[in-house]
Amino acid sequence: MTYISAALFIIGTELTRGVIADKHWQVLASQLTQLGYRVDRMVLVPDDGTIGEVLQECIDTCDIVILTGGLGPTSDDLTRSIVARMANVPLVRDQATFDALYARIGERIWGANEQQTMIPQGFAAIPNPYGTAAGFRGIIPEGDREIVCIAMPGPPREMDPMFFDQVLPYLAQLIGHDDFARSEYSTFLIPEAKLDELCRQATFNGLQWGTRFQDLKISLYLVGGDDQERVEMAKRLESLVGPSLLVEGDVMPAQLLTDLLVARGETISCAESCTSGFIAKLLTDQSGSSAWFYGGAVTYANEAKMAMLGVNEETLQIHGAVSEACVLEMAEGMLNRSNTDWALSVSGIAGPDGGSNEKPVGTVWFGFASKHRSSMAVKVQLTSYGRDSVRRKASVVALILASQYIKGACLLDTVKKWQYI
Amino acid sequence: MTYISAALFIIGTELTRGVIADKHWQVLASQLTQLGYRVDRMVLVPDDGTIGEVLQECIDTCDIVILTGGLGPTSDDLTRSIVARMANVPLVRDQATFDALYARIGERIWGANEQQTMIPQGFAAIPNPYGTAAGFRGIIPEGDREIVCIAMPGPPREMDPMFFDQVLPYLAQLIGHDDFARSEYSTFLIPEAKLDELCRQATFNGLQWGTRFQDLKISLYLVGGDDQERVEMAKRLESLVGPSLLVEGDVMPAQLLTDLLVARGETISCAESCTSGFIAKLLTDQSGSSAWFYGGAVTYANEAKMAMLGVNEETLQIHGAVSEACVLEMAEGMLNRSNTDWALSVSGIAGPDGGSNEKPVGTVWFGFASKHRSSMAVKVQLTSYGRDSVRRKASVVALILASQYIKGACLLDTVKKWQYI
Repeated sequence: MTYISAALFIIGTELTRGVIADKHWQVLASQLTQLGYRVDRMVLVPDDGTIGEVLQECIDTCDIVILTGGLGPTSDDLTRSIVARMANVPLVRDQATFDALYARIGERIWGANEQQTMIPQGFAAIPNPYGTAAGFRGIIPEGDREIVCIAMPGPPREMDPMFFDQVLPYLAQLIGHDDFARSEYSTFLIPEAKLDELCRQATFNGLQWGTRFQDLKISLYLVGGDDQERVEMAKRLESLVGPSLLVEGDVMPAQLLTDLLVARGETISCAESCTSGFIAKLLTDQSGSSAWFYGGAVTYANEAKMAMLGVNEETLQIHGAVSEACVLEMAEGMLNRSNTDWALSVSGIAGPDGGSNEKPVGTVWFGFASKHRSSMAVKVQLTSYGRDSVRRKASVVALILASQYIKGACLLDTVKKWQYI
Repeated sequence: MTYISAALFIIGTELTRGVIADKHWQVLASQLTQLGYRVDRMVLVPDDGTIGEVLQECIDTCDIVILTGGLGPTSDDLTRSIVARMANVPLVRDQATFDALYARIGERIWGANEQQTMIPQGFAAIPNPYGTAAGFRGIIPEGDREIVCIAMPGPPREMDPMFFDQVLPYLAQLIGHDDFARSEYSTFLIPEAKLDELCRQATFNGLQWGTRFQDLKISLYLVGGDDQERVEMAKRLESLVGPSLLVEGDVMPAQLLTDLLVARGETISCAESCTSGFIAKLLTDQSGSSAWFYGGAVTYANEAKMAMLGVNEETLQIHGAVSEACVLEMAEGMLNRSNTDWALSVSGIAGPDGGSNEKPVGTVWFGFASKHRSSMAVKVQLTSYGRDSVRRKASVVALILASQYIKGACLLDTVKKWQYI
């Protein structure tokens, strides 16, 4: 059987009530289209009894049905039993899924979570490293046709990696892309629409791409061609966006810095004003972070900058808190008080209020001090899409620049080449 | 005929190919839900011949079908002729629409734009002040049922005003808009599956509910009944989960604390170990936070606790960093160094490593100190679903307990009554 026509089937009452917005459609539709599938319908239904009827319509007309949602532990999460009914098989426990979940949550598995380890008999479980509900894929016979049915959990942080790592390669194989190959990159600080536009400029020899927005980075998948072609496209892209904003692999911004510190056996501390603890939080997201992280000062008020870091009152009066002089005193104060190898500091205008002509919202100063290198400060003007976006971007910039500082780079040069932050 | 069940039907090949993201679903779904309609399916199809077939399925099962897209001037924009065929009427020119468009574009109307002035006979045109395609609404007879069919253009800048100004009032009238009511609550620290289970226990008189997971809280919507019944259900729920974990309205955990501080004109500082800056970040998410937030110390390493907060070395040696004695010294040290009205501290085992039989992963101590009240410390044992979940929950607990401390509550009593955190 040739598989071409695909239906996307998304389940969630919170979606049909308009309480939350769907995040999957575009990612799934664009990836399927790039592989050569024709997406003939996308259907969104509430978590209720009508699922079966609408799903039957998809099965009647399409070769592949991809479902997301309806795999949670609550009573209205019906996907697995409806797919089993369509395939005319019972639900059975997938032992590997059960064992993996038991290893994580122990006796709490009994009750609602246990049913999340059940899949339709004859289907293959798809492991879910980021949640409790396994996905599954298998065949629903329909007359002389064999419909491929794939079910994934609804939350994007669970579905995205499951789709890209486990489902997409399978779909590529199914449609005959023997040469399906892809490389993953991580990009920082570049807006998704801009990244797409730049990919159109940088592509060649029919290379395709897909992007996935993930918290503090955007993953970029280059698809097709050979290894060398994908590397060449990545190089072209990097020359368009500027240094350090595109790296190979699945890398969170904090890892740029912590991998370096671990390799060198060194430690860091941070003094934060506008990011107010968020950099410290990112530096301790991984277990074992006491190896590289000492601690930090969140000096939101000017009095805190003076009391906790020894910033001079005159500096604040003459230059203001968002200034080269202030971030240098913050970083040096932090270094002296902490006895770490490296210290970073941040002070900026997060907005939405507090900007001026001279220092508009998005103006952020970064300071760095060290036992190993002379102190350094650099200013970045971030495009503001709101307070949260300025604070998150400033945190990412601080992490990238700190790793460049440790490597001995000239921060002014780096920042000057950034095109689209 | 009673109109309750609605289908949203969106047409556009650029959507099913994933080239652009849909912008209508959530707006339409939430508005319809608020009016009291039940959105039973949302379907997205390409601009091709299959539209009729899928539309027929919607007509077979729903009372109202709202279409967007497929009204443009290009040859693959088929909506109007398919609706006319379903209603078994010819397409006719709507003279008012023609005249309005002629007044704007003159002789250019002849050709592709002329067909945009055609609507199914017997339907009412819906003027489009922002584009060339008129919308329309009318009845599709289906046996003894009369399906309401509404078609709007796809571009958001045309559809949005048409929907809000002309379609929404019509839909409100159609459903009577009288017995529709709901209340929103915010819940903290209760797993979604457990909340659903508790709602089943607490409901009465046919009250319905819905939940929405949002970062650090879960919104709970109680639907139906009268105001008093919804308040009663909320009270029952609160008695099941424990105090302070369910509040009226759309409230983020940090607001519990910051609203209180603003009302009192007071300030806070925080000393964080395991949450490592995340509480400071949450307390500054809102603009204007310098009114209530001074700053904080992120004392991840033991040396940082001593150097930055004056915690005694003996305290750390005898009791460890995760102890009543340590969080009390942290909170008091923070208060003394900051001159704020209130100070909070947190120290716990975030995991996944570092737990012991005595202090398993999820053990977190919270300390509070103030000019206005004697110092207090309390231990909470959080159910661990991983490092990130422990740190996020600990941050929410700190914010809730700090607001209780300021209000003069007995924190030990509060914590003892929490059932499912």
